[in-house]
Amino acid sequence: MKYESVNQALEDLRKHQQTVSAYQHAMGVMNVDASTAAPKGSWEGRGQTMGILSEIAYQLDTDPRLDEMLTFLEAHMQELDPQQKRQVEVLRKGFDETRKIPAQEFVEYCVLLNDAQAAWEKAKLENDFDAFAPFLEKIMATNRRFAGYYNPSLAPYDALLDRYEEGLTMAALDPFFEKLRAAIVPLIAKIQQVPQIDDSFLHRHYPVETQRRFSDYLMEVMGIDRSYCTLAETEHPFTSGFNNKDVRITTHYHADDPSASMFSVIHEGGHALYELGGDDCYNFTVLQGGASMGIHESQSRFYENIIGRSRAFIHAIFPRAKELFPEQLADVDEEMFYRAVNKAQPSLIRTMADELTYANHIMIRYEMEKQLIGGTLEVRDVPKEWNRLYKEYLGVEVPNDTVGCLQDTHWASGLVGYFPSYALGSAYGAQMLEKMQADLGDVFADVANGDLSKVTGWLKEHIHRHASFKKPGQLFEEVCGEFDASCFTDYLTKKYTELYNLK
Amino acid sequence: MKYESVNQALEDLRKHQQTVSAYQHAMGVMNVDASTAAPKGSWEGRGQTMGILSEIAYQLDTDPRLDEMLTFLEAHMQELDPQQKRQVEVLRKGFDETRKIPAQEFVEYCVLLNDAQAAWEKAKLENDFDAFAPFLEKIMATNRRFAGYYNPSLAPYDALLDRYEEGLTMAALDPFFEKLRAAIVPLIAKIQQVPQIDDSFLHRHYPVETQRRFSDYLMEVMGIDRSYCTLAETEHPFTSGFNNKDVRITTHYHADDPSASMFSVIHEGGHALYELGGDDCYNFTVLQGGASMGIHESQSRFYENIIGRSRAFIHAIFPRAKELFPEQLADVDEEMFYRAVNKAQPSLIRTMADELTYANHIMIRYEMEKQLIGGTLEVRDVPKEWNRLYKEYLGVEVPNDTVGCLQDTHWASGLVGYFPSYALGSAYGAQMLEKMQADLGDVFADVANGDLSKVTGWLKEHIHRHASFKKPGQLFEEVCGEFDASCFTDYLTKKYTELYNLK
Repeated sequence: MKYESVNQALEDLRKHQQTVSAYQHAMGVMNVDASTAAPKGSWEGRGQTMGILSEIAYQLDTDPRLDEMLTFLEAHMQELDPQQKRQVEVLRKGFDETRKIPAQEFVEYCVLLNDAQAAWEKAKLENDFDAFAPFLEKIMATNRRFAGYYNPSLAPYDALLDRYEEGLTMAALDPFFEKLRAAIVPLIAKIQQVPQIDDSFLHRHYPVETQRRFSDYLMEVMGIDRSYCTLAETEHPFTSGFNNKDVRITTHYHADDPSASMFSVIHEGGHALYELGGDDCYNFTVLQGGASMGIHESQSRFYENIIGRSRAFIHAIFPRAKELFPEQLADVDEEMFYRAVNKAQPSLIRTMADELTYANHIMIRYEMEKQLIGGTLEVRDVPKEWNRLYKEYLGVEVPNDTVGCLQDTHWASGLVGYFPSYALGSAYGAQMLEKMQADLGDVFADVANGDLSKVTGWLKEHIHRHASFKKPGQLFEEVCGEFDASCFTDYLTKKYTELYNLK
Repeated sequence: MKYESVNQALEDLRKHQQTVSAYQHAMGVMNVDASTAAPKGSWEGRGQTMGILSEIAYQLDTDPRLDEMLTFLEAHMQELDPQQKRQVEVLRKGFDETRKIPAQEFVEYCVLLNDAQAAWEKAKLENDFDAFAPFLEKIMATNRRFAGYYNPSLAPYDALLDRYEEGLTMAALDPFFEKLRAAIVPLIAKIQQVPQIDDSFLHRHYPVETQRRFSDYLMEVMGIDRSYCTLAETEHPFTSGFNNKDVRITTHYHADDPSASMFSVIHEGGHALYELGGDDCYNFTVLQGGASMGIHESQSRFYENIIGRSRAFIHAIFPRAKELFPEQLADVDEEMFYRAVNKAQPSLIRTMADELTYANHIMIRYEMEKQLIGGTLEVRDVPKEWNRLYKEYLGVEVPNDTVGCLQDTHWASGLVGYFPSYALGSAYGAQMLEKMQADLGDVFADVANGDLSKVTGWLKEHIHRHASFKKPGQLFEEVCGEFDASCFTDYLTKKYTELYNLK
């Protein structure tokens, strides 16, 4: 249709966004249900339903009527309020990106990812990289081709990075990771030379039922309103937010390691506070949810590490931990607990890595993705290069591909250019802490009393409430000024020098 | 489009049914999620999403292209196989019925029901009928209006009855209930004159965690494959089936009454076996699921009462009950347990009612619905009339609305004209038992060994596998001959005369 008034186009745009939200909501609930409650044998029918709904959602994303609304509104940008402008901008970016992919190639890619997921699971189980390699080759080739569709004037990997973190480039990431490496690698080396932290008491038997009560307590301390956020159990913890009054987080319990669930709850709780903290006006629009993966990880990792692994937080929660696990922690004091949950030790599995060595896992994936997309690394050489980098960056030998280059699901899911957000999030968080303390003074006195309201209040005001109204880079800079990775390296250096009494 | 071949029209009809199934599946999962896992405060956003999806589903149901497919196929019925013919017939009935509801009214009703659900839960919790009354008024008014759309030449309540049980009328129900009343009321009176059954041991403390294990056992005895059927916990137990490989049942636990969950699990398990037992060919078509509410209730109540409350079944499961609750059942034997779970005693809560007095609860709802839809009862007078009827039909005083007119979720869910199916189902079940025993001989010998395979095998063969391929009346009559309510009254009279040693 031809639009005759801005209001008419805006009304259609509002409805369009609500409809897209409804499909995302329904498919999101089905995904959460699939991994929490659904009977195991129900996958086939759900696959069919999700296929049908995804196709309809794709048609909505590429609907020529959306193009008409956007084109009309783009010609009347001066009449729109800032929120409406941003909606048009974000929808245009998504529409163009999706439309640039020829339908046939999109469908083939969906089929490829579906097959690749099953192939990866099997290959990981059987430590058989060769069986997965043909899929990975096609995924990398497709991403390289799609990068050209998205933005042919960018280097392909930059075009991919931009999808997950608007404006992020290799030119920004190279010095960032170089700086992290320069700070972290020597720290790790020094730690190897001093007495290690004893965390053996964390591997006693902690009944899952009691851990569940501990999770409830942690969510309470975080100030997460359970009327709007549930906690369920899955193999791999995740957060799903449907709007600012419906967020689901999950954790996993290991009876021989309560810290696995403890820090999963705090990490996912950080994501949840972000989703819950968005202003109502963004619900059911394209501006709902976080600004980017990097900003989202900045929140989850802020709570998990900067708060959750701080001496102040451990001081606040330790009495309750001791109450729930009196025998397991009988010979443990607060300081021992603090040190144990901060033990730094190079390891093989990214998701289990400590705060210090975590970024090195990301560097390795970044190096490999750059080369795979850039064409300087062949898929068949991935295991060799992976193992070489783990030796170089973390000093560990990779015994097999199951715990090596097959450990993560991301590439099989088509997520190329997504990993750097994890490290970026940590660094964002450290700089946010500096700014927060500059604004509020020392926040850890309150944290030590189990009061996170100042911390969450500041984050809500500066980050959460804006949902994705602002571009991630803009949001960050308006709050913290120019990004400076040394906040993060300084934070790590100070924390680990003190913790390990390094010279 | 104009169709040129039957195959082309059938292919479109297949796709249409799959798409409708996909929406039903997604909305069904959202509904299950809403009452099992979703955060309590999330109803508003879900209401919006359900409104949008319902509207799209409504458009599908009234799509002129569906009319074209059906019209073309109706002109070529001789070329269709029986299943395709029935699909056309059922889709035509639904299309004609739904098209009569204006789209806007339909969507508003869906939103109303979502809000009413939350309002009812709160009102029940707080014993505040007035807070729920405005929702109930709107629901009754909408049903009365819709009844006129469905079939303006029927009395409104008959038009509603027909939706749940094709062809059912007040003219059929009045004498049916009269017959039940004539048999049951004297039985109840006689029972008041003889020594009562002691079921006090059922009100000892039965920890919920152990009751959960008992539920797992009961589902095992029933032969329900947990790969395709989950068990969750809700205030009001229910069954949701999405296809024959994805069924969800729920129960509720009362620590001071294990029979509440026990018979909920068996009842919902009966629904589940029906949903699970449909032939694969009906999945993702309009013939998926049960033939009618009455047939569905015949299955659930067959398992709950005719099997579950039989001496044979109690013999089979009592050892396990005793194993799980050794202290609570220390002084209890099998016969005491059998008698306790069959204790007949007029009471307040329908879902907790015994097999004998249950129908009286239905009669009350039937009387009230007739009047609410007929316009001779105002919603504001519901509590008064409810309490009056409980006194008249069951001889009990209703102390508050939480255990009175707010006890059931049905009206809040828009189910008006649905209740009679429960009593009808019981009567269907009693007649099925006669036929089953005529075919197989005494089935209770196997039941006493915990082997329900003959029973379920017969029901699967004659009822379950047909899903809704046949009309309910036709299905019933093909298996059991003409419906005869005296099978049910004879069954009750025999059982309770023996149980209470009546003259």
